[in-house]
Amino acid sequence: MTETHFESGIGFARRADHHDPLSKFRMSFFIPETNIIYLDGNSLGRLPHRTRERLQQALDYQWGTRLIRSWNEGWYDMPSRLGARLAPIIGAGEDEVIVGDSTSLNLFKAAWAATKLQKGRTRLITDDLNFPTDIYVLQGIANQLGPDFEVTIARSSDGLTLTSEDLEKVLNEETALVVLSHVAFKSAYMHDMKAVTDLVHSHGALMLWDLSHSAGVVPVQLNEAGADLAIGCTYKYLNGGPGAPAYLFAKKELQEKMESPIWGWFGDENPFAFNLGYKPAPGMSRFLVGTPPVLSMTGIEPGLDLILKAGIGSIRKKSIRLTEYLMFLIDEKLKPLGFTTGTPGRAENRGSHVALRHPEAFRICQAMIFPADNNVKVIPDFREPDNIRLGVAPLYNSYEEMYLAIERIERIVEEKLYLNYSGERAGVT
Amino acid sequence: MTETHFESGIGFARRADHHDPLSKFRMSFFIPETNIIYLDGNSLGRLPHRTRERLQQALDYQWGTRLIRSWNEGWYDMPSRLGARLAPIIGAGEDEVIVGDSTSLNLFKAAWAATKLQKGRTRLITDDLNFPTDIYVLQGIANQLGPDFEVTIARSSDGLTLTSEDLEKVLNEETALVVLSHVAFKSAYMHDMKAVTDLVHSHGALMLWDLSHSAGVVPVQLNEAGADLAIGCTYKYLNGGPGAPAYLFAKKELQEKMESPIWGWFGDENPFAFNLGYKPAPGMSRFLVGTPPVLSMTGIEPGLDLILKAGIGSIRKKSIRLTEYLMFLIDEKLKPLGFTTGTPGRAENRGSHVALRHPEAFRICQAMIFPADNNVKVIPDFREPDNIRLGVAPLYNSYEEMYLAIERIERIVEEKLYLNYSGERAGVT
Repeated sequence: MTETHFESGIGFARRADHHDPLSKFRMSFFIPETNIIYLDGNSLGRLPHRTRERLQQALDYQWGTRLIRSWNEGWYDMPSRLGARLAPIIGAGEDEVIVGDSTSLNLFKAAWAATKLQKGRTRLITDDLNFPTDIYVLQGIANQLGPDFEVTIARSSDGLTLTSEDLEKVLNEETALVVLSHVAFKSAYMHDMKAVTDLVHSHGALMLWDLSHSAGVVPVQLNEAGADLAIGCTYKYLNGGPGAPAYLFAKKELQEKMESPIWGWFGDENPFAFNLGYKPAPGMSRFLVGTPPVLSMTGIEPGLDLILKAGIGSIRKKSIRLTEYLMFLIDEKLKPLGFTTGTPGRAENRGSHVALRHPEAFRICQAMIFPADNNVKVIPDFREPDNIRLGVAPLYNSYEEMYLAIERIERIVEEKLYLNYSGERAGVT
Repeated sequence: MTETHFESGIGFARRADHHDPLSKFRMSFFIPETNIIYLDGNSLGRLPHRTRERLQQALDYQWGTRLIRSWNEGWYDMPSRLGARLAPIIGAGEDEVIVGDSTSLNLFKAAWAATKLQKGRTRLITDDLNFPTDIYVLQGIANQLGPDFEVTIARSSDGLTLTSEDLEKVLNEETALVVLSHVAFKSAYMHDMKAVTDLVHSHGALMLWDLSHSAGVVPVQLNEAGADLAIGCTYKYLNGGPGAPAYLFAKKELQEKMESPIWGWFGDENPFAFNLGYKPAPGMSRFLVGTPPVLSMTGIEPGLDLILKAGIGSIRKKSIRLTEYLMFLIDEKLKPLGFTTGTPGRAENRGSHVALRHPEAFRICQAMIFPADNNVKVIPDFREPDNIRLGVAPLYNSYEEMYLAIERIERIVEEKLYLNYSGERAGVT
């Protein structure tokens, strides 16, 4: 399955770490607990040291001391400043991205506005690999727009990937908008962004990409691909903090044509004139709504800076090596124990996590996270019904962590340690 | 104008502070800059000490150490836990309030859902005293719902208050929903919540209150007043931090009838089942959308705790005394200099700020905030065209601050210090 040379012993992992040009970035993160292998950066990225300093400053100086004056001293511009900082990471222009609200809300605003642009077209398309909130938001929009509107969920023929043929089955002249995750949250399947965008455009539809599982870890070139719209969260590979506000991209020539369904004062052309009638702000600011949550916004920039400093090219290179190495180790040590992978084998079709599947995945996951002995804790996440997602964050994960994680899973299954855990789904993630 | 006894000299203020049962609460706030009188708690409340500790813990322990595990250790329940904590402050049941998103977004969701309930009714009512974002959001809703729908802005006959007669002029059998600010942002005019709600109900319309300028500083009894819906921000008198998420109230019997227009995964009955179809969660959770901004959410609770500890009764008592005292000092010292007030004279019709009006208000405001000499900085805010808002936050403002602020304004005008400032509106607040 893997094309590159790997070796079974831990010595290989240690040598790979020794030669890893990104290994020094781990020191930029706050890692107080040592006996833990964190493989869930695809769900919540780690805390950068610089973020702690910035939050301290936001609290004590900006809020505590400058108080209301801080709105004129940097807070007011945060949505567009952060958008401009994020833009190169996703191949967008500086004036094409705005940061604020949640991913779901940005999808609501963008998908609604895009559908309204597509007069006479009443079908919204997504797929069964997409993150459920994207599907729900589209269903909600169709429901509000009336009985003419409908969401069609394209079906992946193998459950892992959505091929052009799968997508083409549901595209037609009624299609207003297609919404897909660039990297699928369960299987890590990654679309060819340009090919899919071209296909969608050939049917006269607009294309909106959800970059939540790709931005910051794989190269994204929205403008090169001709994408119309994009959304994504900042709390996964961008390390922006729990529930940190999301971003919205609209290509330059669409912006002035689009109207947000939610007319809030931060989207008005002159919020502090306190006029009685709304006029949309020029550019992306029209998609802002209410006062942004400043503390959570403050957490975003240091994470972006780290990505920009390391460079997406180097990050992607290491991400591929780490996932290939994981798959090599899985082939060697775990497949004989009844595991399969639920992730594309070819690197160019894969994001930065590996889905490991096993009928006892939930209990194995519990045993990894809550070891009864003093063994290392391995933290992946579990996705129904049988997926253990091993997320790889090249800025702080090492080859040795991959080795130790797989060795730990091997032991849990060989020694049937998972039998000590309940299969009941009490938790929320 | 004022009914209580006040005296002109600073001695009165000092004695009043000495006997003030709430004076000790000032110590619960982080106040590093001493040469400042902060009269803008109606725009951004001060930072509680406890909030600094809680944010530190959220950063280093919850995010930095526990990472994804924190979702099961308190983050997931934050919207409903904070809602239950806030409920008694606004006279609501614990299961009637949820915290998340911005005030504007909560208004969008609630007003949309309420309008949909009111089949055959197509008119949304607000007034010209309301905060502009409320008006804009309603205009946006009417615009999306189609040409049958319309927003009517009731006109205040005196520019300060909206009387029952003013409101009755626009109420009729087409009215679906009325949205008013309980306390008006410019004039501080406070509605009789029960009387207005009854009037609105008598026309078959639903009543939604914006509590942004009243919660935490005046008694609010949503259920006693029979209110249907309410929204409000947490960053003013509730001291939740810049742009901290807002809250949404829907009375118990309405909740299950209402459908949010935005179907996000946090509003689904089982977000972590990752189903392909949305089913609204029971109760208020159906109004949640995306992942909440945890750091900004974390800032909210300590502020609520302070309000609950002090008690709304004591807070309101001091608030009235402080605004009465301000108006007494304005009568004595500022009216001879060309000032007028733009605030109701009777305490029962007034929230917790006093609008001071002067043709040179903008430049006077600049001179207050940016003194050229080493004089005290007085920080109010300015609202077009001629309003200086003097906000009174009983938990940290003192009588002496009122005295010194008015004395400072007197000097700025008597000595024409404001002539040194430009009238150009460069800032955003």
